Amino acid sequence: MALYVQKFGGTSVADPDRMRAVADHVARCRRRGDQVVLVISAMGKETDELLRMAEQVSDVRPGREMDMLITAGERKACALMCMALASVDVPAASFTGSQAGFITDTNHRNAKILEITPERVIAALDEGIVPVVAGSQGVSTERDVTFLGRGGSDTTAVALSHVLGADLCELYTDVSGVFTTDPRVVEKATKMASITFDELLEMTATGCPKPAMRSVEVAHSYQVPLHIRSAFTWEPGTLVVDSYDSPDNKNESENGMEQPIIRAVTHDLSESKITVADVPDRPGVSAKLFRSLANANVNVDMIVQNVSDQGHTDISFTVPTEDLDRATTLLESEVMAEIGATSLSTAGAIGRVSIIGAGMKSNPGVAAKMFETLAANEINISMISTSAIRVSCVVDADVAESAVQHLHTAFDLDG
Amino acid sequence: MALYVQKFGGTSVADPDRMRAVADHVARCRRRGDQVVLVISAMGKETDELLRMAEQVSDVRPGREMDMLITAGERKACALMCMALASVDVPAASFTGSQAGFITDTNHRNAKILEITPERVIAALDEGIVPVVAGSQGVSTERDVTFLGRGGSDTTAVALSHVLGADLCELYTDVSGVFTTDPRVVEKATKMASITFDELLEMTATGCPKPAMRSVEVAHSYQVPLHIRSAFTWEPGTLVVDSYDSPDNKNESENGMEQPIIRAVTHDLSESKITVADVPDRPGVSAKLFRSLANANVNVDMIVQNVSDQGHTDISFTVPTEDLDRATTLLESEVMAEIGATSLSTAGAIGRVSIIGAGMKSNPGVAAKMFETLAANEINISMISTSAIRVSCVVDADVAESAVQHLHTAFDLDG
Repeated sequence: MALYVQKFGGTSVADPDRMRAVADHVARCRRRGDQVVLVISAMGKETDELLRMAEQVSDVRPGREMDMLITAGERKACALMCMALASVDVPAASFTGSQAGFITDTNHRNAKILEITPERVIAALDEGIVPVVAGSQGVSTERDVTFLGRGGSDTTAVALSHVLGADLCELYTDVSGVFTTDPRVVEKATKMASITFDELLEMTATGCPKPAMRSVEVAHSYQVPLHIRSAFTWEPGTLVVDSYDSPDNKNESENGMEQPIIRAVTHDLSESKITVADVPDRPGVSAKLFRSLANANVNVDMIVQNVSDQGHTDISFTVPTEDLDRATTLLESEVMAEIGATSLSTAGAIGRVSIIGAGMKSNPGVAAKMFETLAANEINISMISTSAIRVSCVVDADVAESAVQHLHTAFDLDG
Repeated sequence: MALYVQKFGGTSVADPDRMRAVADHVARCRRRGDQVVLVISAMGKETDELLRMAEQVSDVRPGREMDMLITAGERKACALMCMALASVDVPAASFTGSQAGFITDTNHRNAKILEITPERVIAALDEGIVPVVAGSQGVSTERDVTFLGRGGSDTTAVALSHVLGADLCELYTDVSGVFTTDPRVVEKATKMASITFDELLEMTATGCPKPAMRSVEVAHSYQVPLHIRSAFTWEPGTLVVDSYDSPDNKNESENGMEQPIIRAVTHDLSESKITVADVPDRPGVSAKLFRSLANANVNVDMIVQNVSDQGHTDISFTVPTEDLDRATTLLESEVMAEIGATSLSTAGAIGRVSIIGAGMKSNPGVAAKMFETLAANEINISMISTSAIRVSCVVDADVAESAVQHLHTAFDLDG
């Protein structure tokens, strides 16, 4: 008997037929003798509809009330899912974030989990009842309803798996797993049978849309075994494993132990580039620059500082495009004068292309091969950043997909 | 400075425009220096839509999950109302039934309030914040979400008024007050400036649709002053007073102190009549009959036992038409044999017409005048029942409205 935490996203529970399909799946798992805990998102586009309604009602939308509003979506979906389970003779009970014991901070709209006290969930399991937990919600230390943010249901499922000691956390979604690259861009993209936490973390950080970044961070921290799979085809998806020594890993046997393995190519068109030029090259300048941006909650990603030329330097970095205006206003009105910079330029239409895989740090040929591939296809690189298992290049947005296609072929990922 | 509890029903908060109209009204009340607590129902027809969705999902709908589902409607409405208030600079905070301290029994879909611990509501008031409380909901002694039933928001408002010691409980709705009879049936129906608790109780019990019966019972028990009024015209509605000595009463000055005052005519087409004929006239027969019906949760209303004829009697009573089949099946399968009754007949198409007003018990002419009016218009009476302030006659359904019109004229209620 194994304990599964199964999370179903909005499209997986979008209508009564989908709910019954999920209920049938849970009934099958129980017939196999397994225990199941469900985590459910709001149905289909309901969260978007609630946000639209709030915009119609008022220009002033306090976070506390937005959370009260939005969390109604998951509650409805959980209650309906319990009824769907009842119709196939599976006893079930819904739990709000609060009832499931998710204690969060008071940061409305984007609350962080502080602690989970899942006594009621455990009691339900002990009675043979399937707990159906509302995703992405909790109760704050001030006893107010909180929302964990978009994509928060993945985090709910992973965190709950950890505290329950689940054997596997299954994230059911509308794709069938994690692919070597975006299948919409590269036809020959293939589903990976397994991937390590580190690699998945780099992939979600550089454009792979599912699962939500934050849930991968939690899974990574607590080593929660994940299975990313489809609620439409029910086929086996992608297992997220600790390392390739893991017995779950099935698809790396033919490579040498120390060979670099490029696992995936990702791309991300959601960022913009800012270059602050002609900055005096003094200690503390970068600190001032990025501290001001951090204080304004601008999430800076890649940072490149060019070689100093006669005591001056250019600093380039990327920010989410939605934060671009805010960041430039802040820089022009306050920061630039303070650090003595003279000019600022921005580029909105950029794309970041990344290759991901273990072992590349000790194999310098990997980065070189990436640059050569792009050069051979006349794709210009404007920024580069690397991690232990990733190389990212910023290119023009309109050639980003072409870059992905060439890299996917060059690194032998075409299926 | 007075404290008002103001309840707004579904049509009063059906869309963003209506919500803003309510917010403007609250802002006006606060400018006058008054304190306001809001109780909000689900928007428009949302509760019906949630029920329909549940029917689509499953034939099995556990009460606990139905309550989790339905209460999402009031939560949404409360959160949106707080945003509407914020847009007119009124600080507000939403409270679920649980957060507002409504502790109920575990009778899902129709829970009864056991106790209210409104500490958070009081704390908000003390800070100058308008508490916006979700109507018709609470948390059970088992810590599950409960729904107080349809029309339960009125009960929430009245009960909260009592525990807060509010100066007035205002029930805002889509009609402008309590009328001498149904204005759709009698054009000359007039709005009453005031009415006593007793009279309103009899009126809601015999067909006056608003406010909900149960809330009037609570208001009656705790003498909670009510004002039933319109959220569309905002004109003064009907005050519910303790007695006509009340200084609030303005429209009875011309009548002598002991004159019977017929205040209203009501009618109700939702009941059916059952006659159990030829019952041996022995002690305990009625007890058995009505105990079985009570155990089956059939709500018996009027009961008439005809004069015994040679040791046998006929017992007629009315039940809600929706319970008619269940009641007759129960009687025919079990009860009739047990009490020795030989035949049973039912009449579905009946109407109950009632006149209501204080002082009629010591003025026998009132009932006689009612019977004469019906007879003069060739309307046949099949059952009669009376209380201290009401006389009801069962007539054929198709002449019930005509009966109302003639009685409204005969008792000088035409405006």
